[in-house]
Amino acid sequence: MSPCRIGIVGLGKIAEDQHVPVILKNPAFALAAVASQRGHGVTGVPTFRSHGEMFAAVPEMKAVAICTPPKVRHAIAREALAAGLDVMLEKPPAATLSELADLAAFAAERGRVLFTTWHSQYNPAVEWAADVLKGRTVRTLEVTWKEDVRRWHPGQDWIWRAGGFGVFDPGINALSIVTRILPAPVFVETATLVTPANADAPIAADLVFASAAPGAARLNAAFDWRQTGDQTWTIRIETAEGQELLLENGGARLLIDGMVTVDEPMAEYERIYEHFAALVEGRRSHVDDAPLRLVADSFLIGRRIETDAFHW
Amino acid sequence: MSPCRIGIVGLGKIAEDQHVPVILKNPAFALAAVASQRGHGVTGVPTFRSHGEMFAAVPEMKAVAICTPPKVRHAIAREALAAGLDVMLEKPPAATLSELADLAAFAAERGRVLFTTWHSQYNPAVEWAADVLKGRTVRTLEVTWKEDVRRWHPGQDWIWRAGGFGVFDPGINALSIVTRILPAPVFVETATLVTPANADAPIAADLVFASAAPGAARLNAAFDWRQTGDQTWTIRIETAEGQELLLENGGARLLIDGMVTVDEPMAEYERIYEHFAALVEGRRSHVDDAPLRLVADSFLIGRRIETDAFHW
Repeated sequence: MSPCRIGIVGLGKIAEDQHVPVILKNPAFALAAVASQRGHGVTGVPTFRSHGEMFAAVPEMKAVAICTPPKVRHAIAREALAAGLDVMLEKPPAATLSELADLAAFAAERGRVLFTTWHSQYNPAVEWAADVLKGRTVRTLEVTWKEDVRRWHPGQDWIWRAGGFGVFDPGINALSIVTRILPAPVFVETATLVTPANADAPIAADLVFASAAPGAARLNAAFDWRQTGDQTWTIRIETAEGQELLLENGGARLLIDGMVTVDEPMAEYERIYEHFAALVEGRRSHVDDAPLRLVADSFLIGRRIETDAFHW
Repeated sequence: MSPCRIGIVGLGKIAEDQHVPVILKNPAFALAAVASQRGHGVTGVPTFRSHGEMFAAVPEMKAVAICTPPKVRHAIAREALAAGLDVMLEKPPAATLSELADLAAFAAERGRVLFTTWHSQYNPAVEWAADVLKGRTVRTLEVTWKEDVRRWHPGQDWIWRAGGFGVFDPGINALSIVTRILPAPVFVETATLVTPANADAPIAADLVFASAAPGAARLNAAFDWRQTGDQTWTIRIETAEGQELLLENGGARLLIDGMVTVDEPMAEYERIYEHFAALVEGRRSHVDDAPLRLVADSFLIGRRIETDAFHW
């Protein structure tokens, strides 16, 4: 089978660090072109200033990975689907749930493949945890996602503006793991959004979940962008059967009852592109809105608490 | 065919004003029992203090209308579906989108009928407007939903708390009409949420929409709870073909190019129960999350502006 000719729209850090090298080493794909507003390029690959130009100039392109900021993804993805391309979306797949619902419907209407990637779901430890939890009863869920915004988002003012999600930008990664591994869905019951006086989006959030499954005692998540020193990205789960699962390092490492069960180097994007190749081959879409839904629900029913103004 | 024996959970104003009398006059239904925490009842109908007691005591009941506050709907609806009942949900169908998604999945799994009612969609003028707009291009959309919160929600403190939706409580009615009549979906592009200093939920909101359909020039909605005197619930639409549609009185009256085209007394709940009877008979669910999605999207990307504290 000849490789799938794929383009990239938006050549920011995630595209350069992950998408480009992973595409170049996956024989199922050939990087056909890139579109970058800032005129960035990839050596040996045709580069365009806009996705529209790229779609028109490279008719042999069959798929596209959209790695722009979320705000413009919906419009670009719609144009790509209309141009007959299969589409992979970086996380979060759109700025709003209504945009994502529209893309899912439009892809189905046009017979195109749509794939919403949530990179944190593609770790061996995460899949292992999901398998272990299948059929079990979760008693407690404790998500702790605490990092230093100055270290990970230096100078990115947009994260504080309306639609920038604030601390839910990393927090949605945790939620994407939660929705992937839990055997029954959870619902936001209360959300406290700690928001700087000079920002629209929260710097910290505390979520309490409910579950439809019986036996859940305490399910919660704490996100905080004010953590200096050691950074924490852990998910701890106790089952009614008495097991303890501890996912560390953002889902890279899994301890079961204190024993290291999985500890492998991250290969999230390698798995993502393998999955996309299978979807394209099988003409199936994979649209998962659950993580974004939990974020929207948190804002919908969240109580806002004002805290000190934030300065870089 | 024998009538469908239906129960009501939550005997507040909307149940007493609409559900009870409409059920009593619709031969497709028989009111089998009501559950009311406050012990309200309907003459001649068995009354229970809890839905659980009612489900257990009235096994011939086949369906239930859930008219409680939104916060508890999900749990009650899940119990009802598990008990083998078809379920009708008052608007909004749940407190969060994740709860609603769960109910839709659970109803499908159990082979039960789930119906999310949005009462404002069930006016003859609304259906007429949807028919007229089919295949047209909407150039401008102007939603004006301005009413006096003191007149319509006297003393209801919960509407100001987190999850109470604030001015989106009436606003969601307008959005349910918009999603019903527009020929292409709209997405919240910006939202401004004017929120009293002593409240969690907004007293006014300005929304700007985008549309996937070409030709849209200006699409917006203004909700305000501070309007004394005349109350305004209008939706004005101009098409690219030059027509003007004006829905007045919350969707009861339609003017096309200034001419009154539909002006009928409201019969929303009569239509809702006719539709539910057809769904139950045909074993089909009708789950519409679009209005709630637009509200969640508005909170997700909304910019909050503080205004004067609110006092009754």
